[in-house]
Amino acid sequence: MTEKYEVTDRTTLKRRPHRGIYDKEAIQAILDEGFMCNVAYVHDGAPRVLPTGYGRIGDYIYIHGSNQSTMLTAALSGEVCVLVTHVDGLVLARSLYNHSVNYRSVVVFGRPEEVTDPEEKLASFEAYARHVLKGRFADVRPPNSKELNSTTVMRIAVSEAVAKLRSGPPTDFEFDLDRDCWAGELLIKQVFAGAVRDPHGRQDVPLPQYVQGYEKLPSVEQQKVENAPDT
Amino acid sequence: MTEKYEVTDRTTLKRRPHRGIYDKEAIQAILDEGFMCNVAYVHDGAPRVLPTGYGRIGDYIYIHGSNQSTMLTAALSGEVCVLVTHVDGLVLARSLYNHSVNYRSVVVFGRPEEVTDPEEKLASFEAYARHVLKGRFADVRPPNSKELNSTTVMRIAVSEAVAKLRSGPPTDFEFDLDRDCWAGELLIKQVFAGAVRDPHGRQDVPLPQYVQGYEKLPSVEQQKVENAPDT
Repeated sequence: MTEKYEVTDRTTLKRRPHRGIYDKEAIQAILDEGFMCNVAYVHDGAPRVLPTGYGRIGDYIYIHGSNQSTMLTAALSGEVCVLVTHVDGLVLARSLYNHSVNYRSVVVFGRPEEVTDPEEKLASFEAYARHVLKGRFADVRPPNSKELNSTTVMRIAVSEAVAKLRSGPPTDFEFDLDRDCWAGELLIKQVFAGAVRDPHGRQDVPLPQYVQGYEKLPSVEQQKVENAPDT
Repeated sequence: MTEKYEVTDRTTLKRRPHRGIYDKEAIQAILDEGFMCNVAYVHDGAPRVLPTGYGRIGDYIYIHGSNQSTMLTAALSGEVCVLVTHVDGLVLARSLYNHSVNYRSVVVFGRPEEVTDPEEKLASFEAYARHVLKGRFADVRPPNSKELNSTTVMRIAVSEAVAKLRSGPPTDFEFDLDRDCWAGELLIKQVFAGAVRDPHGRQDVPLPQYVQGYEKLPSVEQQKVENAPDT
């Protein structure tokens, strides 16, 4: 049996409860497919949200930032809500009311902890690199102690979490089905669109395979094959 | 002279203040390029954030939802922070520390108002349709009074807002420039990847031009031409 997260008051979907997914593997798969999350926190009583990269080690999401980061300071003094969303398409119904979006998302609630142990800090850098671009860590200069000291790392336990998704065609009302209006899904994908070499520094280092075949996103060429044209 | 938004305490960037953009045209351009935003709000004292579609009429962003939406109910009783982000690429430096992301984002702070006037509600539906998919509104059945009544619409004034962006190559430390490590930008784009007809209802309606040539996103074919391969 697959492991499931406990359903709490705030991970209960009030509308369309059938869209709520608490399966650990499904949630981790959505988290691992992304590389940018949105972190919401409260600052002076008001909500704020910022995009940032992230990594995962086991049941924790790791987020890095400068010691001067307003987001990290505020987030570490309270709770956060971390959101990862993959947009898969626009759902074009015959009525404007039934238009929708196909997506997969995960929301994680929690009280973040600061990571101060130097070994865990370094491991979190490696996890971030591995998460965003597998293969990169072995090529780059790892952070030195000055860089580690000027970086604040926080971790959020993935324990109170819910995934949601919508997929497939529009759901029109029966009385709209015969309208003279094209209906269906407009597919949207994030793709790897090429690599541009830094004009500074050494120019003779070959483009690594892990960039050419960026595994998080299909390339334009792969995309062409996967393309599902309207018939 | 281009119009600028007033800089407030929370739209002041504490780090890298040079990345802050308050120009009205630049902010509206980033908002208009997107179709999904993230709305952060406070619920029972804790932060929450959800993705949703949006439209714009002049200086207002409009967001729709069900009358039962927890997000709209909570957002309308306080403040929100609305975030729109376009991810343009991963920035691969020679040190892990200097890795970054190229992006364009807008953050809008404000106290949303509920839109109750039926004409403005209908106009906001039309703005949403126009914003997400130009040309769509003329083809679909517009919302009837029952649908309008079961929809809550909120508007947020775009007045306290800041755009941020990063573009271009990595910024490595001088002493890292000769490392045996490829550095540069891994370009990322959202593309229109095809249209899939709804298997239900009429099957003889031609695919509209505004879907085939979806103007918000490049198609796979356009993407190939724009592609900047590493040399």
